[in-house]
Amino acid sequence: MIKKQLIILITSLMILTPVKGQKDNPQTITYNAIGYFRTPYTPETRAPRQGILKPDVKARIEILPKYREALQSLELFEYIIVIYHFDKSEGWHPVTRPPVSNPRYTFGLFATRSPNRPNPVGIAAVKLEKIEDGILHISGTDAFDGTPVIDIKPYLPSIDAIDSPQNSLLEKELGLPGKTK
Amino acid sequence: MIKKQLIILITSLMILTPVKGQKDNPQTITYNAIGYFRTPYTPETRAPRQGILKPDVKARIEILPKYREALQSLELFEYIIVIYHFDKSEGWHPVTRPPVSNPRYTFGLFATRSPNRPNPVGIAAVKLEKIEDGILHISGTDAFDGTPVIDIKPYLPSIDAIDSPQNSLLEKELGLPGKTK
Repeated sequence: MIKKQLIILITSLMILTPVKGQKDNPQTITYNAIGYFRTPYTPETRAPRQGILKPDVKARIEILPKYREALQSLELFEYIIVIYHFDKSEGWHPVTRPPVSNPRYTFGLFATRSPNRPNPVGIAAVKLEKIEDGILHISGTDAFDGTPVIDIKPYLPSIDAIDSPQNSLLEKELGLPGKTK
Repeated sequence: MIKKQLIILITSLMILTPVKGQKDNPQTITYNAIGYFRTPYTPETRAPRQGILKPDVKARIEILPKYREALQSLELFEYIIVIYHFDKSEGWHPVTRPPVSNPRYTFGLFATRSPNRPNPVGIAAVKLEKIEDGILHISGTDAFDGTPVIDIKPYLPSIDAIDSPQNSLLEKELGLPGKTK
């Protein structure tokens, strides 16, 4: 009986302990939420595709108290990047069908922005309206209410804003407007 | 004796099991590397700040075999977004000093792109040259060799390319050129 318990203990420790930095053993990475989205969207109401295309929708990100000091001067930036965890993600398939009729290409998952990914991590540029008491008031998001936030970064045009006519042409195949200048 | 083992088992399971979606209990998020960077940079050689500003440097991302089917059609895109784990990150401080002399502002960590973050996750837009046998040939990266990759997404100008004169002005304070059209 003791032996059985010990086997369960050791097995559970082996399963749950992250493997460190081996190149041939996939590495396990653990993050903790630094805050949560507060938005009008739930899986029942659904959400728009790519919230930045709906800039009128207001939302908030509540940063947990221990991380609030790190928000200093962030309010100087008009646009920020939010990295978040699609906690409603439902597994993934290698090949997806984008929500556009008669797509010209078959897209592998990594060629799409689907939330159902091997690691369901999302990124979005959002407009920052103001920061009050550790709460970021933003507009233009498609995140569900309660979505855990992993990181916040300033949007830096030198490295983040890329003009790519080829990508603009292609994004129409993924159901986006295809930005033109 | 059995009781003691049971207590150890239950305690270890409690410590190691992620807490799901509680607002007041920070949520633990676990990802697995989908591949690794192969670059000329190590902590000894150091790396340029923001690799996209050094487009001549060639590098690779090796995607693990089980994820390769999901790369289909990605090669159509000229630019992609790579989300990766700063595995050489050394903890974080709430307030940082950007690498520019006489900065006008004090920047909280979330107002910078420092790799030393609560969750050391990095994002970068890189140019995709070609894909061969699950290996992405890219240019313009500042990642160290062996850096674990969490996700790959297409760069979609409609939602990712933002023109913000205010952010362009500010990024000079963070030591970047300050993009102008």
